[in-house]
Amino acid sequence: MKQDWKPGTMIYPLPALLVSCGSTEEEYNIITVAWAGTICTNPAMCYISVRPERHSYPILKRNMEFVINLTTKSMAFATDWCGVRSGKDYNKFEEMKLTPGKAKIVSAPIIEESPLCIECRVKEIISLGSHDMFIADVVNVKADDKYLNAETGKFELSEANPLVYVHGGYFELGPKIGKFGWSVEKNRSQTKEKS
Amino acid sequence: MKQDWKPGTMIYPLPALLVSCGSTEEEYNIITVAWAGTICTNPAMCYISVRPERHSYPILKRNMEFVINLTTKSMAFATDWCGVRSGKDYNKFEEMKLTPGKAKIVSAPIIEESPLCIECRVKEIISLGSHDMFIADVVNVKADDKYLNAETGKFELSEANPLVYVHGGYFELGPKIGKFGWSVEKNRSQTKEKS
Repeated sequence: MKQDWKPGTMIYPLPALLVSCGSTEEEYNIITVAWAGTICTNPAMCYISVRPERHSYPILKRNMEFVINLTTKSMAFATDWCGVRSGKDYNKFEEMKLTPGKAKIVSAPIIEESPLCIECRVKEIISLGSHDMFIADVVNVKADDKYLNAETGKFELSEANPLVYVHGGYFELGPKIGKFGWSVEKNRSQTKEKS
Repeated sequence: MKQDWKPGTMIYPLPALLVSCGSTEEEYNIITVAWAGTICTNPAMCYISVRPERHSYPILKRNMEFVINLTTKSMAFATDWCGVRSGKDYNKFEEMKLTPGKAKIVSAPIIEESPLCIECRVKEIISLGSHDMFIADVVNVKADDKYLNAETGKFELSEANPLVYVHGGYFELGPKIGKFGWSVEKNRSQTKEKS
């Protein structure tokens, strides 16, 4: 039986992402973001939505660049902490012992502890209400070769224990059920049994 | 050691969502979407990105309404199948034994098997390249009371076994690590030990 609720934000599971910004060390900051996603495959484009009152907001607007850093189970504490503390009060890199690294294209730092860092350049900012949406081009991706499968050359993100965010809770990734397209594969029964 | 990759779409984990559309039974269709997310909390707004060549695209554009249906482990096969088959060739509701139900506000059907259905009305369509982004207001949410915690009144989405999509693979949700804000709670050591 379904209940009607007032309009709300209930799209999950999502990544809990660490977005790094700033073009000088003094300006560097980290903001935790779950309102983020891919909006176009070709060209590769994504968005993050940020409240204008956040400390990172003017930094993002001034530089029009940021890095989306995927997070892992071992980064869960830092991810949560960076979401409830402000860059006004803390140097988040120092407090969480995260290492700012050099991006290839943008001036914002990457977070070295992240398995995958997505360098973004803002194209447009759309004011929606509580949040502004930053629409951005992906200009480079930095991936930790620790998760490259030596045989296939594929980046095995699932082996990095990516952090999953569901309605206020952080979760680990569970067992694999199948891969894109398995429902129409001839030998799908094998894969299906895993589920 | 980090490798530089060409710009690509690597924000994960994401939900694999079933988007239902159409205002008449003949028109009803389902499209699997991972390029989707929340863009604003107040008002509640979200987006889906869809390729113009998809069968659902003109249906979405004509009606300017759709429903985002969250998926679960038990819906994994249907979710994958609806992502690789076309509504040109199949009645997806019938083929996957999914039940179209009545939404409260929009004319598009909900999928009864989904634990949570988000009714959306399109405000704007932005052409980006391979995908068009449909920016929408959330106008109602239908939630299955099976997942309401009788004591707290909270909707326990994690107990619905939500489907997690990571870089081409479908996964179950794993164990809980913590809840939003646990890093600054006084008794955080207890929660922290779970991780």
